[in-house]
Amino acid sequence: MENNNNTEKVKSAPKRKGAQNPDKRRAVKRADKAPAAKAVNQRPAKKPVKRVKHKGNAVRIIFLGGVGEIGKNMTAIECGDDIIIIDAGAIFPTDETPGFDLIVPDITYLLERKKKVRGVVLTHGHEDHIGGVPYLLKELKVPVAGTKLTLALVDNKLREHRINDAKLITIKPDQPFQLGCFKVRPVNVNHSIAGSLALAIETPQGVIFHSGDYKIDLTPVAGDPIDLKTISELGASGVLLYMGESTNIERAGFTMSETVVGATLDRLFAENSDRRLIVATFASNVHRLQQIIDLAVKHGRKVALSGRSMLNVLEAAEKIGEIRVPDGALVDVSKIKNMRDSEIVVISTGSQGEPMSALSRMANGDNPAVTVGKNDTVIISASPIPGNEKLVYRVINNLYRKGADVVYESLENIHVSGHACREEHKIMHTLLKPKYFIPVHGEYRHLKKHMQLAEQLGMPENRMLIPDIGNCIELTVNGLRRVENVQSGSRLIDGEGIEDEKASTVIEDRLQLSEEGLFIVSIAVSGGEVVGEPAINSRGFVFDFHRDYNKEIREVILRAIDSYDLRNGTIDEFKRVIKRNLRNYLMRKTKQSPMVVPVVVEI
Amino acid sequence: MENNNNTEKVKSAPKRKGAQNPDKRRAVKRADKAPAAKAVNQRPAKKPVKRVKHKGNAVRIIFLGGVGEIGKNMTAIECGDDIIIIDAGAIFPTDETPGFDLIVPDITYLLERKKKVRGVVLTHGHEDHIGGVPYLLKELKVPVAGTKLTLALVDNKLREHRINDAKLITIKPDQPFQLGCFKVRPVNVNHSIAGSLALAIETPQGVIFHSGDYKIDLTPVAGDPIDLKTISELGASGVLLYMGESTNIERAGFTMSETVVGATLDRLFAENSDRRLIVATFASNVHRLQQIIDLAVKHGRKVALSGRSMLNVLEAAEKIGEIRVPDGALVDVSKIKNMRDSEIVVISTGSQGEPMSALSRMANGDNPAVTVGKNDTVIISASPIPGNEKLVYRVINNLYRKGADVVYESLENIHVSGHACREEHKIMHTLLKPKYFIPVHGEYRHLKKHMQLAEQLGMPENRMLIPDIGNCIELTVNGLRRVENVQSGSRLIDGEGIEDEKASTVIEDRLQLSEEGLFIVSIAVSGGEVVGEPAINSRGFVFDFHRDYNKEIREVILRAIDSYDLRNGTIDEFKRVIKRNLRNYLMRKTKQSPMVVPVVVEI
Repeated sequence: MENNNNTEKVKSAPKRKGAQNPDKRRAVKRADKAPAAKAVNQRPAKKPVKRVKHKGNAVRIIFLGGVGEIGKNMTAIECGDDIIIIDAGAIFPTDETPGFDLIVPDITYLLERKKKVRGVVLTHGHEDHIGGVPYLLKELKVPVAGTKLTLALVDNKLREHRINDAKLITIKPDQPFQLGCFKVRPVNVNHSIAGSLALAIETPQGVIFHSGDYKIDLTPVAGDPIDLKTISELGASGVLLYMGESTNIERAGFTMSETVVGATLDRLFAENSDRRLIVATFASNVHRLQQIIDLAVKHGRKVALSGRSMLNVLEAAEKIGEIRVPDGALVDVSKIKNMRDSEIVVISTGSQGEPMSALSRMANGDNPAVTVGKNDTVIISASPIPGNEKLVYRVINNLYRKGADVVYESLENIHVSGHACREEHKIMHTLLKPKYFIPVHGEYRHLKKHMQLAEQLGMPENRMLIPDIGNCIELTVNGLRRVENVQSGSRLIDGEGIEDEKASTVIEDRLQLSEEGLFIVSIAVSGGEVVGEPAINSRGFVFDFHRDYNKEIREVILRAIDSYDLRNGTIDEFKRVIKRNLRNYLMRKTKQSPMVVPVVVEI
Repeated sequence: MENNNNTEKVKSAPKRKGAQNPDKRRAVKRADKAPAAKAVNQRPAKKPVKRVKHKGNAVRIIFLGGVGEIGKNMTAIECGDDIIIIDAGAIFPTDETPGFDLIVPDITYLLERKKKVRGVVLTHGHEDHIGGVPYLLKELKVPVAGTKLTLALVDNKLREHRINDAKLITIKPDQPFQLGCFKVRPVNVNHSIAGSLALAIETPQGVIFHSGDYKIDLTPVAGDPIDLKTISELGASGVLLYMGESTNIERAGFTMSETVVGATLDRLFAENSDRRLIVATFASNVHRLQQIIDLAVKHGRKVALSGRSMLNVLEAAEKIGEIRVPDGALVDVSKIKNMRDSEIVVISTGSQGEPMSALSRMANGDNPAVTVGKNDTVIISASPIPGNEKLVYRVINNLYRKGADVVYESLENIHVSGHACREEHKIMHTLLKPKYFIPVHGEYRHLKKHMQLAEQLGMPENRMLIPDIGNCIELTVNGLRRVENVQSGSRLIDGEGIEDEKASTVIEDRLQLSEEGLFIVSIAVSGGEVVGEPAINSRGFVFDFHRDYNKEIREVILRAIDSYDLRNGTIDEFKRVIKRNLRNYLMRKTKQSPMVVPVVVEI
């Protein structure tokens, strides 16, 4: 019976194909009254699956980012002539991609199917979900749907990139909308940013539930708890595929409620009543900001904001009503020098130790507005994202050197994660009872552990798979299978420059330069003859200050020049000879292999 | 009365000065029968200090490494004409010092006082305590004292560096020896390597107790528990200064005993009886190796060692009796391909994800001896040292991709730290009851927290200080004060090259090259005229693959050349003009600032 319902939906798909005219059709359409999808073949798991011949187009799920990694989330869902994109994130570079500003997914697959793309749906406003939006919109004009706060943050980015013509569509939990053949129903979840959504996507094959990033917080600071009622109703009526985030899958138990942080901060406010307080946190965690502001009011302090993004986010969040700032609660940070320490709490950016942030500059003594000293208590209300530990600890060390007291996570209960731990994941799986499962948002080990958790809960191994970037998964009522990979990868952004990671030698060159330095050998050549003396320059190369190799290096190069008959040879081969001889010498004598760049100036 | 004893010792110092002849005097002399130092002015803390006029030379403590950082520990203690050195460590470079092999302390201060240096006393055999020994001995021929295992590991290093003439002196807990005017009493402590010592050093001013690195393990796997009896006797008879390690000062409670790891491993051996086991751990943790070997025997498996340092350490430790390998327990790793999985446990290096290590190569599928697959359980019996997280997780991800099961610290109880937690520190302070305290071995935040812990236990703030590298602290029976800093810093080692960090532009150049890349502009000049076309090369610079800047760049350079009157100028000024013009252009157009290297070839 239920299958019929589904088959009907599948049948209707071909009709749409003929009728389709993407330019005329409203890309995003409210469809509140459309009946909820009834789905197929609910397990009790491990019973044989009743196979239904599926008709019409299979659904394809294309992973462009956020699997096998934490960051730059982007998933495309395609069926027939429709594609929707879930999230368009960015990731910050690491020491393996030095000097870049940002990394975004390669969207070639989408660009080759421009006409099919109906829109981007953003689950929430973190960088790894919205950071790639400006780069996407520069090449692909599609509507962008998200909650109010998400779009406010996107809007800030678009203004920086001078993109004025974006079509932004505000969506709300439980108000479904149509994007091509997909009916998308946003579901409220808790996370470390307000306005976070999971998405229940009705496709011609059945419902796909995408968790976004979530935790279960049944006593949130503001807004509603995660909508477990809708989630269990979806489970009851049938979820074909669950795509679930995996960030904290290694942590046992249950993530603490955001309100726990408020209680700790309240105690710290009380204990430090005669000291100045500086609280560093993520600007985007508006509920955390709300708690700090409320505590400031309670304890008779004014709030000063330090750091550009802190000002931007607070302004955006206040405008849309996501944060309530009582009249007179704020004071400009430039004014605090004339105020008593006990009257101030500074809320600052820089909780990840970012070198140019407000907090780093306080720690280094070069923040013009805030001079840190013995009467300051600095509270770092965040935990270091893996990879940022050294930066964060440097800031902490420097704050201590200035005489401040510092409260940070390894010492106190001043931060909670925004991601579900294992017991929360168990609840989600149990309520959704999906037929198929794909773990997302995590490194391979996270995805693997999430799959193992699903297996513990009764999901058969052959109804799950671990996706990788570039994978294209075909989904029907009867199965999940990997089909051919699509073009995918990373685009590296540095200033105004953009590199395709796979085609790039930049990373390789930068790593070699940073690890070994370089030698430049410039030689003037005229009519097939070397003229003058070669000019030799090195940078970033380590000599032994006890010895002098310069004379020998010159001799090696002169011998190499003499050894090659340039009249009967080529400039390229000549360069290779110079390079090989100098490299061999340096390797032998110094055990180093710098980049050698021979340059020939032809005159 | 007790003070007299001390005064006497101080009095004797000037005598030694006249009589001294460092070449004739035995540098290290057993002094088992010398009376233990009776020391001065024991607190009950916070009572006023009874000031005693100290006579003779004050003791100077010179910090050359290991304070304000974790790594390259080195402290000199000086009195009159005698200097002893505690530890000679190294530290591994980070992404802030890219491409270097090792960093060791600047020992200029010691080189300028060569004749005074009586010897180096090593507390234990970890890299951050012995890694600098070869570099020290190349410039300063002094005896090196340490326990058997410590010296065996030093000996391996010296052979690599072809140093054959080192004077190594084996010392044992509770067997004091004389070094110049200092009587050094080694005290047994527990740590993550066998043969670890604290040092009680009798000086003319009183006893200095240096903790080395330690934990309190009252049920160690082998060897004795930390010698709390001697420590409390020292405390009872008077400790003038305590220098205490601070690595785990942020961790509450008590470090678990090494035997806990054995219990977990035993369970994992039992649970994985039909699978092959691969255990990665630090080679130097010989008690961990002992536990794995014993469990292998118990569970009917042979042990295969993978990784050069694993073989070296096991050989060295077995030779000196620090590890017992039953006959036939070992099997060559090349043989395991023909054995059943259930018969093998591989002990491997690479627990920190080091890219060239045995485990990394297994994870990448290029370890010729061990091919990882679905029937392997890999146990990583270590926790990532801060900064190594990404490397470790990459290995874990790749092992999972190969189908192996991976057990690591965030999931299981398979590692314990070698450093004291807060409750252990409290015990040490309480037993020693020192008059003065200096926290060592930690970043500033650790040292600060350690000082705060001492304060909680009753130590007045004015009897402590936080040292920094280069600090020279003068210690007498009456006080502790910072005197003028000494030359200090880092020596950076890359292959055969050595750089003085402070004098070096190499780091700066490497960082700029790695973050921004470079442009090389080579120009031939003859008789004050530019001849031919400039040759332009770039490396590691990010262009926008949508645009072509090459023509404009060439024009910018040609204009710059034309703008400068080389006949009436200088080559250096000419280069600066080229550099400035190209940099300005690139900054404006690409928002990047690569290194620009103008090269003039004069012909």
